[in-house]
Amino acid sequence: MAAVVQECLISAPGKSILHGEHAVVHGKVALAVSLNLRTYLRLQLTSTAEVSISLPNIDTFLCWDVSVLKPLLSHREGECRSSTELDTELVRKLREFIAITDGSTDTRSMAVLAFLYMYLCVFSQSQVLPSLKVCVWSELPTGAGLGSSAAYSVCVSAALLTARGTISSPLTQSQETTRWTEQELEIINNWAFQGEKIIHGNPSGVDNAVGTWGGFLRYHAGKITSLSRVPTLRILLTNTKVPRSTKLLVSRVKDRINQYPSVMLPVLESVNAVSQVCEHTLAEMVTEGASAKHYSTLEDLIDINQQHLNVMGVGHSSLNTLCSVTLAHGLHSKLTGAGGGGCAITLLTPDTDESVVRDVMKELKKVGFDCWETSIGAPGVLMHSPTSLTHNVLDILNKY
Amino acid sequence: MAAVVQECLISAPGKSILHGEHAVVHGKVALAVSLNLRTYLRLQLTSTAEVSISLPNIDTFLCWDVSVLKPLLSHREGECRSSTELDTELVRKLREFIAITDGSTDTRSMAVLAFLYMYLCVFSQSQVLPSLKVCVWSELPTGAGLGSSAAYSVCVSAALLTARGTISSPLTQSQETTRWTEQELEIINNWAFQGEKIIHGNPSGVDNAVGTWGGFLRYHAGKITSLSRVPTLRILLTNTKVPRSTKLLVSRVKDRINQYPSVMLPVLESVNAVSQVCEHTLAEMVTEGASAKHYSTLEDLIDINQQHLNVMGVGHSSLNTLCSVTLAHGLHSKLTGAGGGGCAITLLTPDTDESVVRDVMKELKKVGFDCWETSIGAPGVLMHSPTSLTHNVLDILNKY
Repeated sequence: MAAVVQECLISAPGKSILHGEHAVVHGKVALAVSLNLRTYLRLQLTSTAEVSISLPNIDTFLCWDVSVLKPLLSHREGECRSSTELDTELVRKLREFIAITDGSTDTRSMAVLAFLYMYLCVFSQSQVLPSLKVCVWSELPTGAGLGSSAAYSVCVSAALLTARGTISSPLTQSQETTRWTEQELEIINNWAFQGEKIIHGNPSGVDNAVGTWGGFLRYHAGKITSLSRVPTLRILLTNTKVPRSTKLLVSRVKDRINQYPSVMLPVLESVNAVSQVCEHTLAEMVTEGASAKHYSTLEDLIDINQQHLNVMGVGHSSLNTLCSVTLAHGLHSKLTGAGGGGCAITLLTPDTDESVVRDVMKELKKVGFDCWETSIGAPGVLMHSPTSLTHNVLDILNKY
Repeated sequence: MAAVVQECLISAPGKSILHGEHAVVHGKVALAVSLNLRTYLRLQLTSTAEVSISLPNIDTFLCWDVSVLKPLLSHREGECRSSTELDTELVRKLREFIAITDGSTDTRSMAVLAFLYMYLCVFSQSQVLPSLKVCVWSELPTGAGLGSSAAYSVCVSAALLTARGTISSPLTQSQETTRWTEQELEIINNWAFQGEKIIHGNPSGVDNAVGTWGGFLRYHAGKITSLSRVPTLRILLTNTKVPRSTKLLVSRVKDRINQYPSVMLPVLESVNAVSQVCEHTLAEMVTEGASAKHYSTLEDLIDINQQHLNVMGVGHSSLNTLCSVTLAHGLHSKLTGAGGGGCAITLLTPDTDESVVRDVMKELKKVGFDCWETSIGAPGVLMHSPTSLTHNVLDILNKY
């Protein structure tokens, strides 16, 4: 067991689907990628005999006496639980404790529930429940299909496990950022998955895996595989802010497949091939060095898949607008995630001029979209030195 | 042999591809349909010992003494040629006669060449070459992939064969329009195909078949089949007027298939299925009666195929504009033919309000496109009574 730290700074990336959204529901490959819009967490061990959590993004600031939390673990006195199975009795007690009405899934309640659950479980075998202060702030919009809940769960998991000493505190004096060992990442991911289950009910596990390992992950028939040695790609991430129901969109695709099987099944085949060609191209970009040809292929695949998603019936006029605005500047875009509005990614290449990026972002914002310049394929969960964070992030984390 | 008429009025429709353009090059089914923008022909037997042709659309008005034409047939004295094989010697002589420079394929020269070729061949076994006056006028734009040359060849073929008495003059006093027997249509089509060969070099035979039989034709692996009992569908036909090279677009699709076979071959499969589902739906519209469900299916297929054509790389921003303008009014469009600009069809349903049609046409014209309200699936070559033609058409045909 590693030495316990008094304070730690942790971040985890969001998630985006590069290729294979919807097709994955029908047994095809999807490529999930880390999105370098990150969630940041600061944990401090205190001596206040209190546990406090501050979530400035969603205006949530709560604090409990450790003494009122302890009894919530009474049902598992002395019992040693695995980290891969949800303690439904604890979830039930916590929902009652923080007065969540049945069936409610509002973001604030779910974030608090997941935090308290992980806190109590991680420290359930400790002599005493530690008093601590946690602040989480995110660059990710919530509810946009960008894995904000998973990034949150991964940060909370990594921070609590570090505070507990279950995993190491790997940062040395000279390091700006550092990661954990593969085994430690497995533990972080398992606990984060519990958090995701509490928040989402029946998550695929892809989002927390991306938040933990970062980079590119292949998801196929329930199996998640991390792609080794992949490039980081610059992108624009745009949120059309057109609200959509993932459930409705998934059933729309299903209906369309049932209506036109001979037309739609080959389209799913083609999407599957898009993911495979993309994976192959990403690998080549590392082994051969990235060339203009590789970027051109990635652009072709983005265009093709965007058309296929339109064929599946999950396009939207806002996404058409986005695609034509970016294409007018020579940039290629596709929706990412559920579609029907929501978010899109636009590939930037090494040749993309900064002035083009500025112009495109300006135009997209003018249409009413939110737009970030970021990257995909960035590292997963990180431990930070304070100097590795921007003043802005540090100020927010220190403020609460 | 039927009685020879002194004058006849004939029309033939243009052609449009409903589904399967480009895919047909790779062994898939295409659905070719008649386009009710028609080419009209008036033939009069005269006693001037001259043959004259007036083509007011392309500003071509020519006249020859029969005596100078006769020697062009000298090489086949007494020989009886089939109508299915091109007399290349006659073509050579005619090119020299009308002074076409080698390799030239300009519309005027080709139209005159095809006319004189058909005239000389059809009457080659006659005692004397008849003197006659032909005027052809078309609603079809030329060079837009709408089968204008085939409609011309079909009209010329039907008119000359009627004048020769090879086929009947089926119009009775009380009829507005009439058609020929199946065997006579075969003869018209064979001669029209010769005209097409002269104009295009190596045509597929689809355009003249559509001009002859009208309706919907399935084209697959070189085999042309007329679909029996199909509905007539109202459409808008739009010409973006963006020039394109069919040859270049065909090779672009081929390159893309070679570059991404695993991605593109399923797309061709899907396009093939679109044609088949469309054919099935058209048949159902006749047997069950056309319902809103049928129109909704036709719209879905149009949208899907337009996306697939984008994936094949033959889309164009002008076509995207067209699709979004029509979709904003609830109408569904796809490119027809080669793509990369060119023409598009927009389906109108029985529910489409006239005011919507007016508004859409106005908007499309404002963008700079030509736009016609017409139909697909209309009859092929027709013989007309003068009263069945509009004043406008009749005035033009009588003027020259």
